[in-house]
Amino acid sequence: MDDVRAIDDLIARLQTQFGDRCTVNSDIRERHGRGESWHPAAMPDVVVFPHTTEDVSAVVRMCTDTNIPIIPFGAGTSLEGQVQAVHGGVSLDLSQMTKLIAINASDMDCVIQPGVMRADLNAQLRDTGLFFPIDPGAECTIGGMVATRASGTNAVRYGTMRENVLGLTVVLANGSVVKTGGRARKSAAGYDLTRLFVGSEGTLGIITEITLRLHGIPEATAAAVVAFPSINAAVETVMDVIQLGVPIARIELMDEVSIDAVSRYSNLNLAVAPTLFLEFHGSPTSVKEQAENIEAIAMDRGSASFSWSDKTEERSKLWQARHNAYYAGLALRPNSIGLVTDVCVPISRLADCITETKEDLADCPMPAPLLGHVGDGNFHVCFIMDKESPEQVAEAERLHSRMVERALAMGGTCTGEHGIGLGKRELLVEEAGDAVAVMGLIKKALDPKNVLNPGKIFTTDTPES
Amino acid sequence: MDDVRAIDDLIARLQTQFGDRCTVNSDIRERHGRGESWHPAAMPDVVVFPHTTEDVSAVVRMCTDTNIPIIPFGAGTSLEGQVQAVHGGVSLDLSQMTKLIAINASDMDCVIQPGVMRADLNAQLRDTGLFFPIDPGAECTIGGMVATRASGTNAVRYGTMRENVLGLTVVLANGSVVKTGGRARKSAAGYDLTRLFVGSEGTLGIITEITLRLHGIPEATAAAVVAFPSINAAVETVMDVIQLGVPIARIELMDEVSIDAVSRYSNLNLAVAPTLFLEFHGSPTSVKEQAENIEAIAMDRGSASFSWSDKTEERSKLWQARHNAYYAGLALRPNSIGLVTDVCVPISRLADCITETKEDLADCPMPAPLLGHVGDGNFHVCFIMDKESPEQVAEAERLHSRMVERALAMGGTCTGEHGIGLGKRELLVEEAGDAVAVMGLIKKALDPKNVLNPGKIFTTDTPES
Repeated sequence: MDDVRAIDDLIARLQTQFGDRCTVNSDIRERHGRGESWHPAAMPDVVVFPHTTEDVSAVVRMCTDTNIPIIPFGAGTSLEGQVQAVHGGVSLDLSQMTKLIAINASDMDCVIQPGVMRADLNAQLRDTGLFFPIDPGAECTIGGMVATRASGTNAVRYGTMRENVLGLTVVLANGSVVKTGGRARKSAAGYDLTRLFVGSEGTLGIITEITLRLHGIPEATAAAVVAFPSINAAVETVMDVIQLGVPIARIELMDEVSIDAVSRYSNLNLAVAPTLFLEFHGSPTSVKEQAENIEAIAMDRGSASFSWSDKTEERSKLWQARHNAYYAGLALRPNSIGLVTDVCVPISRLADCITETKEDLADCPMPAPLLGHVGDGNFHVCFIMDKESPEQVAEAERLHSRMVERALAMGGTCTGEHGIGLGKRELLVEEAGDAVAVMGLIKKALDPKNVLNPGKIFTTDTPES
Repeated sequence: MDDVRAIDDLIARLQTQFGDRCTVNSDIRERHGRGESWHPAAMPDVVVFPHTTEDVSAVVRMCTDTNIPIIPFGAGTSLEGQVQAVHGGVSLDLSQMTKLIAINASDMDCVIQPGVMRADLNAQLRDTGLFFPIDPGAECTIGGMVATRASGTNAVRYGTMRENVLGLTVVLANGSVVKTGGRARKSAAGYDLTRLFVGSEGTLGIITEITLRLHGIPEATAAAVVAFPSINAAVETVMDVIQLGVPIARIELMDEVSIDAVSRYSNLNLAVAPTLFLEFHGSPTSVKEQAENIEAIAMDRGSASFSWSDKTEERSKLWQARHNAYYAGLALRPNSIGLVTDVCVPISRLADCITETKEDLADCPMPAPLLGHVGDGNFHVCFIMDKESPEQVAEAERLHSRMVERALAMGGTCTGEHGIGLGKRELLVEEAGDAVAVMGLIKKALDPKNVLNPGKIFTTDTPES
């Protein structure tokens, strides 16, 4: 049977089983062939909307039987081409799997389906006094966050998805269903499969249920905006804060380009200067103590202004603005696309890494706001490229490549939180070396026919050690 | 070539390469064939003491070439038969690999060889203001702690080995060397191999270098000993503390049998009652606040006494006593051996689990102290068995089996921190079900000849999916 016949037959079978929840509509397929990044779209042949683990298992079985690729899809906000159907096949859209299966408030955990949106989860948790802290800068699904090992602004205090997923239900390439981890806070029972699937970008299995660790909404919260005379002064403040062990909840850097973009986009009227957004969580006493400590450090480093807020509304506005920073960057220039970098370095090298990067950006022919989760040593430059200019894309790629080289030389990583997808497959080899072959052995063992999101993470379609 | 010839040839080659660092002395082999538990010893044919990653690689290559098992060995303190050479072969004793390769104080990390002892690491770190918090109840190597995903009394605040290993150097079954993870605080670069090797008990590779996350020595520390009228009152205090999100550093339960044993063994003169040992870390203000909160909770739950200490010497004495609890248990009865259980349940089920377990122990014909890291929902019953009594062993096994059944029914795990080894292979299947087949696929992919610590974790020697 040739490829065309095979996919047509599969589509017919899927339509029989899923009816309306299976579509070949080209607008829908087009939307499922792209994330939010500059990577070229690649449409799937068909989009299916499962509701249950059994639905997912049925689709995976059909795909494996016929050697047709299957690409999990959440909200389509990935930045490295994770959802692109580069070999065609089935886009498995999990966004209708939005059940909160259990909220165990007294154990501070919950069990959910992967299509639950981050913001919706927190809205549903509100009455329990608990929240889920991980907040990447997009309206994304929790399933997508698990699959890309996402983090965001709170990771410095609460960890990333790695630390906050307790267990998973996963459909494997052969359609079988396994449960990993559990609800105990720790376990030494065999290999840590949960952490293996977290960050595997749909290449090892399809996640259909997630047990998340939750956290108590802090008794007191306060935020501050601190402007600095130089980016170096801001970064050195961050290094002091981390090295002193202040249990800060959020510490976000925006350079002058970034703060200008964010301020305009969200009507905030912020001073155009390198700026830290801070947040403190704890008891009222501890929040006050943290804030005073940090104000003193910032003053020592020459901060020009330290403006405070413990009002919920003001804080929300501030963080919403930070959250929309990527879109604020894109709005700097109509008809633009973004290439977002994502290096992360040991904290002692952060000032060097940012300083050298800023020097490199001095002659950059396009807006390039810099911002990041600097408490983790993670920052982004967002190249706002003219869609029609191959020169700008080439220059952004060149500068990106230099950033990664710099970060790796400093003991860092090419991606703190966006993942590998299509965009960083070569960089993964550069960073991880022979370890990529070990990843390939695992991929091959769990998905011997390479039907699960093929073409992602690995530079070869049939990974070999 | 028959098996005897093969091992004799291998020993000859090892002796040529390693000289004095290779021995067939039967006392040394005997010591390398057992941990600290009741599992029968199984001697290796030869013991080798590597000093470098290259040494380890050379031994692994020779073993793989000749299909001879290789069993990594640290301090020999494992509790589930992890080091027993059940199929003979080479015990690879890593205890001479004790180099501190780098201490990066400003990044709060260090790189060490696996033979470094936990206590020695902290002694060496003292001048940096940093410490490594994970403290299982034995004088063990950090390598062994990585391999078994160890935790201990501080995990409620600082996490387990899972959260505190940033990267590894690992020798694979084919002798090749890979580096996993790195020094960045977070990364989304491919599969999380670091977490895969943490807890793999020497079955996937031999760990030869470890990058650890360190923590700042807290500005202030205080400890408390709180006695309760009933074990239920003590456990309910723990549940309140955890559910209120008090950032307690340690919260350890000992039942009346346990506290009596510990008190005698360490000359502490503690009241014989269910007791919590607590420790608070933070700024002086925050420590005071935490302690006052918890004193109020404990009083509400009817605690009889709340005795405080912020003196370093007193605190050290207390925690050393807790640390020696296993040996204190064994000292209750001369010529005894211990069967230590290790269940961990969601915190909301902890009181039920402990109450039902205590009821089950009412007629137990041997001492059975109960104690644990209750902030994590993890506790141990240590059956102090008469060495000569098969009836006692059988009864301890029956009671253990009921404990595990109870914990699994409550959403818990058969092992919070001791690992699977030989002792819990069937229980792993009961707990993890089909996920064990996935572990088997990974084992087979990474160690196709099954030379790395064969017979551990899996019930079959050639794991198949």
